Order: sequence, then structure tokens, then C-alpha cells
Amino acid sequence: MTQIKVHYQQALSLINTSEIGLFDSETKLHRQKLYEGTGAGSDFLGWIDLPDNTGSGLLERIEDDASIIREESDAVVVIGIGGSYLGARAVIEALSGPLHAAPGPEVLYAGHHLDEEYHHDLLSYLENKEYSVIVISKSGTTTEPAVAFRLIRRQLEEKYGQQKAARRIFAITDARRGALKQLATEQGYASYVIPDDVGGRYSVLTPVGLLPVAAAGVDIRGLLSGARDMAAHLREHHDVFENPAALYAVLRNLLYKKGRTTEILASYTPSLFFFTEWWKQLFGESEGKQGKGIFPAGVSFTTDLHSMGQFIQEGTKNSFETVLTLKKNRKTLTIPEDKDNLDGLNYLTGKRLGFVNEMAARGTMLAHVDGHVPNLEIELPELNAYHLGSLIYFFEMACALSGYMLGVNPFDQPGVEAYKRNMFALLGKPGFEEEAAKLRQRLNS
Amino acid sequence: MTQIKVHYQQALSLINTSEIGLFDSETKLHRQKLYEGTGAGSDFLGWIDLPDNTGSGLLERIEDDASIIREESDAVVVIGIGGSYLGARAVIEALSGPLHAAPGPEVLYAGHHLDEEYHHDLLSYLENKEYSVIVISKSGTTTEPAVAFRLIRRQLEEKYGQQKAARRIFAITDARRGALKQLATEQGYASYVIPDDVGGRYSVLTPVGLLPVAAAGVDIRGLLSGARDMAAHLREHHDVFENPAALYAVLRNLLYKKGRTTEILASYTPSLFFFTEWWKQLFGESEGKQGKGIFPAGVSFTTDLHSMGQFIQEGTKNSFETVLTLKKNRKTLTIPEDKDNLDGLNYLTGKRLGFVNEMAARGTMLAHVDGHVPNLEIELPELNAYHLGSLIYFFEMACALSGYMLGVNPFDQPGVEAYKRNMFALLGKPGFEEEAAKLRQRLNS
Repeated sequence: MTQIKVHYQQALSLINTSEIGLFDSETKLHRQKLYEGTGAGSDFLGWIDLPDNTGSGLLERIEDDASIIREESDAVVVIGIGGSYLGARAVIEALSGPLHAAPGPEVLYAGHHLDEEYHHDLLSYLENKEYSVIVISKSGTTTEPAVAFRLIRRQLEEKYGQQKAARRIFAITDARRGALKQLATEQGYASYVIPDDVGGRYSVLTPVGLLPVAAAGVDIRGLLSGARDMAAHLREHHDVFENPAALYAVLRNLLYKKGRTTEILASYTPSLFFFTEWWKQLFGESEGKQGKGIFPAGVSFTTDLHSMGQFIQEGTKNSFETVLTLKKNRKTLTIPEDKDNLDGLNYLTGKRLGFVNEMAARGTMLAHVDGHVPNLEIELPELNAYHLGSLIYFFEMACALSGYMLGVNPFDQPGVEAYKRNMFALLGKPGFEEEAAKLRQRLNS
Repeated sequence: MTQIKVHYQQALSLINTSEIGLFDSETKLHRQKLYEGTGAGSDFLGWIDLPDNTGSGLLERIEDDASIIREESDAVVVIGIGGSYLGARAVIEALSGPLHAAPGPEVLYAGHHLDEEYHHDLLSYLENKEYSVIVISKSGTTTEPAVAFRLIRRQLEEKYGQQKAARRIFAITDARRGALKQLATEQGYASYVIPDDVGGRYSVLTPVGLLPVAAAGVDIRGLLSGARDMAAHLREHHDVFENPAALYAVLRNLLYKKGRTTEILASYTPSLFFFTEWWKQLFGESEGKQGKGIFPAGVSFTTDLHSMGQFIQEGTKNSFETVLTLKKNRKTLTIPEDKDNLDGLNYLTGKRLGFVNEMAARGTMLAHVDGHVPNLEIELPELNAYHLGSLIYFFEMACALSGYMLGVNPFDQPGVEAYKRNMFALLGKPGFEEEAAKLRQRLNS
């Protein structure tokens, strides 16, 4: 049985248990569509069976390459954007410890934006490092990672020579087509396949996520094992109250229907910052279409209680919170006695900091509920590879179900092309001349 | 004249120029209330004249102490939360370069949350460093920084002995009262005053922000000079179309009245991430009260075009974007030729990465406007201390005016106490016994 729990007691001011039950048959229908591949976007359901279908051969290869990277390199540069970036970073930041003090290469990112100064400084920084590159792109032509890879590959080849550089480059790309696939074949890069039936935001448990996190020292078998157990649990539990993914999907859709158009994912550990970013992409990109969807926002408490807390407590009432809580912390730190007690904290002497953080979380939930902000809670036993794998799969399934409930295809992203077309035109890409003239006119008017 | 410009051409689908003009007399009235101190929250208007009132004696003292920290320390730990944290971090991250490669001590933060593992690892990390501490707290009893300071002070005293440790601690606190003030006096810490008439989120140009940023190597005279020029410009320009702060305040209130209840601050340089966090606190905490206010969200493009882009383009239409753009980049990086051109990027050969980023920004604005998301733009010549100082003052004034337009007191934060009371009760703080029993009952029900 799963150890991830969804609580909704602190949302009962706006919804009630019998309302949830009314969605039982609908969630069963959507689950059936997912498992049988009969719903919208059914070409992109490969993520459902990934935890079971990832063979030990692939895992061994990833672990071997990760070992090589860890032995040969002070730094590993992960080149990718969107779904080819956020999943890996979410897992690495969650599990590597807040100050990245664990042994192993420093993980750096590139091609996740177009900032000139960042990439300039990154190239300078890398000059005196032994480094490897993991480049992730289905097509090999997405502007941001393609530009970054062109720059970094040139420096790597100047540094090591073409042949040795090729042994430090690991490509994760399409099985057959595309610029990166062709280059990898020509140059002899070690390469991994992005499955055709797994979209970017659902790809963290493919080599897209697994190779970078393994290079960072994460236990990928633990990650997959957690996902596998969650997959089995969700498959076996049909009742909405016993299936946490269905339950969470129903809860957020109920709140959305009652005017809560923003969901704030809150956590009390900064290590989950990029996990929250991954969650924002997963839900925002899956649901934000046809003029619908819940706006996904993130807060890191207690930091943001001192910035966004006032708004949540007393501002516009169009949001709800989903609080990620951990039952157990990885490290122990106890508050010491101070004989003068000027700061008045001696009532906490001998208490763990995690206890104070937990009471802050409990107290905040009740305060925000009093401020008419419904709170959901997703409870995780602790932050390790196994439970993080479970949580990833849980959110993926919840997102798919939630998208179906909303009446959208949770596996496409038709809207992300609009800015790219405009950008290509303004950059003078051949073939976009007519569009470019129109855009320039709009910009100058 | 100011070099920061507010553009609204890409919001004209939802608002029009004559509507803006209708607010001319209202903004004049609110400006008068601010300059004459006759509006709500008039005890907290010290920020208005800070750039003019900060004497060279104070600046010299800050610079001297910053030099000592920079000479004696590998790291400086800044302890603070909310307004005692975000302003300094916003400026440091914006100006120190993306990889923090500039010379000088590493800047670390503590007491900005209650994470047990983070503070555990931070203490271990500091053990083998020469370090100094800047502790910022008006009362000295705010839980997060007080706990962190208790822990770090103990370690510092064990490491250096009490006397030498005291010379490495710099306290920024109340002029007369409070736990930290008393401790600073008893122990002989160098100490600075948080003015009584400047609230936390408006305090970045007091020692609260100035000492940490100076310790990080930022030119604080440049920062204040930019703020001073902006202050003069805003004071002298009465017409809403010539006063960028009034104009921005009117624009966002117009959009809010038309149902745009979320404002997304977008920038195209990751160095502005914490500046966006500072902006979120400034506006969210100032406006989010009486069930009103615009929910402040942030995105970092082009990263988030590959995660939040779909939602903004095609999702629920209750937001508008405010895009921070830079006319000039600090570093130069040019896209190289590749003879094979597998990635198809040769049409960009010889172009600067900043140009590509700028065209992404222009193209995205037009795409999002086509997706019925109004776009405002705030244009900054470049990212340096002078212009950042201008931008800070611009936003502070805009926020004050915007709060008055919304009909709230933009200088208080009554809602931030609710969670604290609950937390104290659950932590067993003496005096909260009755509340604790009630809360425990609610949690267990």
C-alpha cells in the first residue's frame, strides 16, 4: 500500500465528502480511458507503464555512464529546457541536499534559457574544469538547447580534441530522426532514446531524467521502485477515496468549479523548489487550454509566509493551497539553551528545528482556512528517492485524470508554438519573411 | 530625466489611453497624500526620502564594515526573513553575476525559513570557513532569524571565542528596543538602525539592504544615486503619462478592474529571479487585504515559456503580464558558425545571444497579446547598481499609489500574525495554552 496520503479535512469549508463521492464513476471512466488508451492524447501514454517497462539493461547502462561521468568530471552540464530540464533538476535538488555538499560532480545547467551573461560566464567557468555534457532534445533544433550545445560542444572539442570530446558527450534524443540523433551517430556519442509515446513533462522517469540524476548520484532504482509501487497501488484501487490520484484530481476540480482558479503548491523545505517548478509545468501545460485551467503557483514556506502570507490570508479569494508535508527530516538539529533568553526562545530548548517547522505548517493551514482559503495536504513519509518516485507518478496520474475531468487533452501543448513562430520571424529565419514584416509593424506602431 | 520607461501599447486590446487619462486627478491626489503624509499608513513613509536622507557618514560606515567583512571572511551569513531578506538578496543576485564568480566572500542566507536539514548542513559547511554574520531583525524575536542566530552565534563563539566572535557580528535592528538591540549593546556588536518609519518591504535602501549588498561588493552609492534620480523625477512629474510610477499604478488597477486578478512579472534574465520575489512581496503584502488585490506571480523566460507558456497562451484568461526588459547586456557571446548546420542555426551565425533573447521577448509579447493576455513592459537600460536603484524606487512609489487606488493601506500587514499565533500555540509557548487546545482539536478532528 502507498504511504503518500491526500488529506482534505481543511477544505471542507468549501466542499463536502458527498460531493467527492459523486465523481466516483467519472474517475473510473477516465481511469479506464487511460489504462485502455481510448481517451484524448492516447499516443502519449507511455509514462503509465514506464516504471514496469524500464529494463535492467537500460538501468545498468545508465549507471555505468553515470559512473564514468562521476569519475572523470568535476562538473556535468545538463543541456535541455522544459520537460528536458525540470524533471531532472527537481529530483537532483530534492535529493542532493540543500548546499550540494554530497560528493560527485557539480551539476550545471545550460540551454534552459537564452541569457547571454549566464552562458558567457558558464563557458568561462568550465574552461578550467574537467567536464561532461548531457544534451537532451527530441529534435535537436529547439533554439535554447541547440544554441547552448553549439557553444559548449565547440569549447569541449577545443579542450579535449574531437574524439575525446565525443566520449564526454551523452545525447538523449529521438530513436531515429532529428539533428541530435544524426550528430550523435556521426560523432559516436553515447546516446539514449526519448520514447515517442512519452511527452516532455511526463519524461522524468525515462533516460531524460534518469541519466542526469544518476550522474548527480541519485539512486535511480529507488526512484523507479517508488514509482512502480505507486503505479500498482493506483491501478488496483478503483474507489475515489482509496485512489489518491483520483482523489486529488477530484478535489482540485471541485475547488476550481467553485471559483478557485489558482492553486498554490506550498512546501516547507527549500529543496522542493524545483519539484514545485516541475509540478507547475506538469499541471499548467496539461490543463491550460481552451481558456480553462487552474493557474499553478508555488510558495516556499516559511520564507514566503513573510512575503505572500498577507495576500493568502486576507487578499483576493480565488485560490486554494495544496501543502506538501514530510513526516520525517533527514538531518537533526536541536535548538540550544541560552541562559539569558533575550530572544525568548527557551521554551523551544531541546526541540528539533523540524518540529518547529511542522508546527508552523499546521498553524498556517488553520490560519489560512480561517482566512477562507481551503487547504489540501499531500503527505510524504520523507524525502528520499523511493518516495519521490512515488510522488512523481502520483502527480502524473492525477494530472492526466484532472485534465480529462476538465475536458482537455492533458498530453498536448498546442499553445507553445505561437511565440516560437514569432521569434523565428523576428530573428530572420528563412521562410518567415512575410510574418516578420507584420510583426515589425505591430512592434513599431 | 529617468531612463526607465513604462510601455502599454500591448495592453490596448483591453484598455485605452483615454481611460488612463481619467485617473490623472486621482493619482495627483494620492501623490499629494504620500508627499504630505496625509494618507493611510502615514507613519511609514520614511522610504520616500531615503535616497536623499542617507548621509555620507552612514555610507562610509557601511563601506568600512563591508571592507572588513570582505577582507576577513570567506563567507558572510545574512540572517533575516521577509523584508529583512528579500531586498538584499534581490540586489545581490541581480548584480553579482549568474555564477557568483566575482571576487569577495560567498553570501549565504539563514533564518529565512525553518528547514532543519538546511540549517544543519549550513552549520557544518561554516565550520571550516572564516565567516561573518549580518543579523537583521527589528525585534530580535521573530522565530526564524532568532533560531538561526542562536545556532550560528553559538558556533561562531565556539570557533573564535566570545570577544572575537562579537567583532564578526553586525546587527541591524531597532534604534532603542528589542532583544537584538539589547544583545548588540551588551556584546558590543557593530550595529545599524532600522528606521521606525520604514516598513520591512520598503527597507532595501536602509542598512537592512545596504550592508549585505555592500559586503557582497555592490556599489551602494550607485544604487542610491539611481533611487535619488528616480525620486526627483517622480516628484517633479505630475501628469500620469509622464510619471512612470503613477502610470504603472493606473495600468494595473485598470486591468484588475477588468478581471485580470493575477499579474505575472516576466523577465528574460535569471539574475532577476530574486528581484521578482522582492516585487511579489512588495505588491502582494501591500495590496492583499480586505479580500482584494492582484495575485503577484513571477516567471523567468525563456525557461518558463517551456512550462508556463502553454497556460499563459491558451489557459484561463484572468492574468496580465508585466515584462521587465533590458536594453543592453553586460557580457557578449556570439553564436558561432557550424559548417554542417545540422541544428539549422546558421541563420544566427555572428548574432549575439542577447539579440536572440530580445527577439524571443518581442515575439512572446505579441504571441501572448494574440492569446488575449495584455502585456505591459518596463524597460531598463541595463542591469547595474544605478538602474536597479531607480527600479526599486519606481516600484516602491508605484506600489504605494496602487494601494491607495485600490483603497487599502499599502503599509500595513495585519494578516501575517494569524499563522504566528497558531504556531506559537502549537509550539507550546507560554500564554497560548487555551488557543493550543482548540487548535489541536481542529487538527485531530
